[in-house]
Amino acid sequence: MHIEILGSAAGGGFPQWNCNCPNCRSVRAGTFRGKRRTQTQVAVSNDDVSWFLLNASPDLRLQIEAAQILHPRFSGRHSPISGVLLTSADLDQVTGLLSLRELQSFRVFCTPSLRSILQKHNNVFAMLNRVPKQAEWAEIKPGQSFPLQAISGNYSGLRCEVFSLGSRYPVYVSREQAAGLVPEEASVGVIIESSSGKRLAYLPAVSSLDEQLLRRLETADVLLFDGTFWSDDELVRVQGSGATANEMGHIPVSGADGSLQMLAAVRRPRKIFIHVNNTNPMLDESGPEYREARAAGWEIAEDGWRLDL
Amino acid sequence: MHIEILGSAAGGGFPQWNCNCPNCRSVRAGTFRGKRRTQTQVAVSNDDVSWFLLNASPDLRLQIEAAQILHPRFSGRHSPISGVLLTSADLDQVTGLLSLRELQSFRVFCTPSLRSILQKHNNVFAMLNRVPKQAEWAEIKPGQSFPLQAISGNYSGLRCEVFSLGSRYPVYVSREQAAGLVPEEASVGVIIESSSGKRLAYLPAVSSLDEQLLRRLETADVLLFDGTFWSDDELVRVQGSGATANEMGHIPVSGADGSLQMLAAVRRPRKIFIHVNNTNPMLDESGPEYREARAAGWEIAEDGWRLDL
Repeated sequence: MHIEILGSAAGGGFPQWNCNCPNCRSVRAGTFRGKRRTQTQVAVSNDDVSWFLLNASPDLRLQIEAAQILHPRFSGRHSPISGVLLTSADLDQVTGLLSLRELQSFRVFCTPSLRSILQKHNNVFAMLNRVPKQAEWAEIKPGQSFPLQAISGNYSGLRCEVFSLGSRYPVYVSREQAAGLVPEEASVGVIIESSSGKRLAYLPAVSSLDEQLLRRLETADVLLFDGTFWSDDELVRVQGSGATANEMGHIPVSGADGSLQMLAAVRRPRKIFIHVNNTNPMLDESGPEYREARAAGWEIAEDGWRLDL
Repeated sequence: MHIEILGSAAGGGFPQWNCNCPNCRSVRAGTFRGKRRTQTQVAVSNDDVSWFLLNASPDLRLQIEAAQILHPRFSGRHSPISGVLLTSADLDQVTGLLSLRELQSFRVFCTPSLRSILQKHNNVFAMLNRVPKQAEWAEIKPGQSFPLQAISGNYSGLRCEVFSLGSRYPVYVSREQAAGLVPEEASVGVIIESSSGKRLAYLPAVSSLDEQLLRRLETADVLLFDGTFWSDDELVRVQGSGATANEMGHIPVSGADGSLQMLAAVRRPRKIFIHVNNTNPMLDESGPEYREARAAGWEIAEDGWRLDL
């Protein structure tokens, strides 16, 4: 399995347009010990021919241009992108679909509730279905396992399992609309298995951890895990107001209930934080938080990484 | 007046993710005599302190990062962006609003019909109004003249006139929804006047030209004008199907009814094509179409240009 990390920051990217926190200020000034990052975007392939996107970031157009493997290979209009799998309806996971509106055929894999949010309550996404044989929506449900099939019907060699990671819908979904949705379809985690049995676990937003989830993660070869916030009140301190990490559906990295501690016993996979917010101090490679994460056996994803399993 | 051209391509950008036309192929290969371009985005200011965006391109996040003048100036959260003026609801003009969702105060100036499309039929844009004192929607109507005022109430020194440029709503707006909208509010042209009387005309999508419009353009110092397509059937030839330039609401550059010919008598403004599609042969600076446009007194906008009037 080939995995391209095209983007590794949380929503807003790093730096974020209206943020002048110490991280954002010093990365703009060129004095930061660490990397700029676009919004989280991953692409996977079994054969290097047919590629599947995990979510669709707002930065997708430029992320595709930065990855030669995703450029068209035939004359006229073409793309090696065969499908997009959505894990939530958060804007940093779905906005990039609007950049894929240029009459191309591909599959969108998502839960029925996510499909309803996008197709019933947001008619901008109708641009994906302007003509016949454009986007084909494939509904997936937590607990299911299914092949990642291209619209041509060709089997990509990748199989996928999805499981519920929570019932929190994005803030833009009104309470009335949410009442018509299935709670466990709000946010899913994904395990993708290659034809040779290698397994990638992809969980960019994790609101809580239990034994069952930990056992599942232990079956993976690579784990891309929610690294949004270092501490629970991080964003409140920068903004002066707003929600905590837990209120936004992210367990923080540090602390007794944080992911470093909670996942210490998960030993099999290569453990990589992704979806890192611009305010997270572990982005600073000269700081103690970065050292603490690395010492605990974690890596912090960077744009442009390629993993081959 | 200060004008920043942050992006100059039509929807999809140059190159476009799924396009392997001669232009896109050779710009990716590094053999093209011409520049890459992000999707059209312009910012204007009278005082270099308060900036107004003309539309909000899907590439906006990275365009802001590329323009130092638009970076935050105070600690915590801040932006010099005071407002966004929308000329249509096309995705390449509005998607960037979703990148401005980070709890910042700014004004959105648009027609009541555009506001209805975004707020009633697309609840993703509710992210701009999650908290009090976030986006403030200011309705403008064709024929009106108004000050570009920051949300603080401070007058920016810029005045704006908008005028109808057509009744074509985007394809994603259903026929039933369009029936409830005002036809002349679909697409507007803009003239912005600085405190010293300098005038910018901004018309990225022009479906037809008449004497009244030509006289209006003659009052401008700088004209940024629809350069989407060179010829009417350009896109059909690359894609093998689809709509003509005229069907998409753009008069082509060349030909008897094209903009080179029709605007030959407009002599006062500096004339610049913007919103240039990836298929347009005038992007190639070694080709006859580029030479023809330049010989007719036109420039072709590039990302990163700054104009001071």
